[in-house]
Amino acid sequence: LKITVLGAGAWGTTLARHLVHNSHNVTLWAHRSESLAQLSETRQHKALPGVEMPEKLVLEPDLERAMEGADVVVLSVPSKTFRSNCTGISRFAGIAVSTSKGIEFDTGSTPCEIIAQTMPAAIPAALSGPTLALEMARGEPTACVAAAQDEATARRVQQIFHSPAFRVYTSTDLRGVELGGALKNPLAIAAGTCEGLGLGDNAKAALITRALAEMRRLGVACGALPETFGGLSGLGDLTVTCFSKLSRNRTFGEKLGRGANVEQLIAESQSVVEGYPTVRAAWQLAKKLGVATPIIDEIHAVLYQSKNPRFAVLDLLTRESKAED
Amino acid sequence: LKITVLGAGAWGTTLARHLVHNSHNVTLWAHRSESLAQLSETRQHKALPGVEMPEKLVLEPDLERAMEGADVVVLSVPSKTFRSNCTGISRFAGIAVSTSKGIEFDTGSTPCEIIAQTMPAAIPAALSGPTLALEMARGEPTACVAAAQDEATARRVQQIFHSPAFRVYTSTDLRGVELGGALKNPLAIAAGTCEGLGLGDNAKAALITRALAEMRRLGVACGALPETFGGLSGLGDLTVTCFSKLSRNRTFGEKLGRGANVEQLIAESQSVVEGYPTVRAAWQLAKKLGVATPIIDEIHAVLYQSKNPRFAVLDLLTRESKAED
Repeated sequence: LKITVLGAGAWGTTLARHLVHNSHNVTLWAHRSESLAQLSETRQHKALPGVEMPEKLVLEPDLERAMEGADVVVLSVPSKTFRSNCTGISRFAGIAVSTSKGIEFDTGSTPCEIIAQTMPAAIPAALSGPTLALEMARGEPTACVAAAQDEATARRVQQIFHSPAFRVYTSTDLRGVELGGALKNPLAIAAGTCEGLGLGDNAKAALITRALAEMRRLGVACGALPETFGGLSGLGDLTVTCFSKLSRNRTFGEKLGRGANVEQLIAESQSVVEGYPTVRAAWQLAKKLGVATPIIDEIHAVLYQSKNPRFAVLDLLTRESKAED
Repeated sequence: LKITVLGAGAWGTTLARHLVHNSHNVTLWAHRSESLAQLSETRQHKALPGVEMPEKLVLEPDLERAMEGADVVVLSVPSKTFRSNCTGISRFAGIAVSTSKGIEFDTGSTPCEIIAQTMPAAIPAALSGPTLALEMARGEPTACVAAAQDEATARRVQQIFHSPAFRVYTSTDLRGVELGGALKNPLAIAAGTCEGLGLGDNAKAALITRALAEMRRLGVACGALPETFGGLSGLGDLTVTCFSKLSRNRTFGEKLGRGANVEQLIAESQSVVEGYPTVRAAWQLAKKLGVATPIIDEIHAVLYQSKNPRFAVLDLLTRESKAED
């Protein structure tokens, strides 16, 4: 198959390399041509030290040429530019696999909904789960979910990506898989904040338990299946994002908890912290649907209304004691 | 209230101290009188460095005297001696709160079922959740579940233990709460083994996701409610046990993964690793009920059939790829 990967971040690059190893013809495109130039020169990605790029991986800075003859396109671009990237390839016909994890502000659309809105001939699919790029690139065992509205497409994506070290499961709850991936980011910021404030593992475990319930509640109100949030794209991704030292959202929250300034953190961050815009979109979505999301509300207040993180966490911990929900 | 706590391990001692702070009259009893003698002398527990015991806490090595006039008894004894401890106080009439997390070999009984079998005048209840003793003793925010068959008893236990830093929620799925607490231990051994083998956070997150599903499957077959496993006593406790550096079961698994010998590890361990006997009881229970428990099966093979942990984890990771269940 000819597969074009859009986005040369750590994950897009890791997947492009993996697809070459799976014997596909792979072209990698990036918005910033310097990213490709550096990859071409060093055959390494700066976020993936020690990981060699295969000779067969084609690096193509021109979007039209990159898309020429592509059977499948993989969209590994930031949520912020997702819609414009889709619009740029609106005529593509084939499976469009999103690996982006976000919710669009104002529209509340997930990446695959944006694909459906902007690429009429494409079949949307998502690949999501607990997938730290560096670990995957180093060949450590990784598992994820390929989701599409129909089973046949989900299986097709599974076949394309599956390998002994990268186990791909299927799901037809596309919305649930996408919302799990998106919502875990704000919740991981909360978990990191908890850590930064010096709270212990008991508090963090309690927070994560309530976070999964909150994710499920909001997801179900959006039409997702509740059980999807207990799977790799929900609980699995939430776990890795809340605990791994490699997680950007967790680290961002930890710095917040230690007293860092929000604007300064965003300005200084080298890579995209997807949770930051997602907090606002998720908060908006919850308000619109009338779903109770105490953790998202508090993180929203910290990020967008200058609330002190300590008071935010205290307010979460002192909610009225009652039966578990 | 007069409350008697049986068992002066880290958790029993922490709860006894907490109940004194909650203005109850508390007596602490231990099977080994040396434990009490040491507590009496140093006013500190060796597993709780820097945590002072309140003057008002009564230490009583004689069981009969300890139980005299008790309104409530808290059983914080190891699973291994749970039945004999209950038999020793068989005439007690009142709420008997178990904090033990295990399943009895051959009978498959949980601690509260043993209370019901041996203490005809007692009302069984359980207190369970992500509660590392040292963190709780140091006053860090901790949340847990008080469970009983009837709502009134669960609320009563909640009132007795609740404080601003120790948040107690209620549940009437007593079996589900107990099975979550028991089953997370074998699963945390598996997660630790994964780490000891040098696998990354992606693999561990995938394992934990499947572990929760396995716990829920076996629990539901035993009559528990599926949603209980998503709560503090299921997911919450699983999370803290799989991730905290303070978790004995996780650490035990980590050493196994690094190549330590099972018998030697057990012989050397200073404190009880509850997961070790629970693996055998859970495996037996799953076989009896015909429930698929791949993770428990592999850990059972490692602990009781000398299987190499590396092959066990490989066998888990290479199970046939399919739709998520």
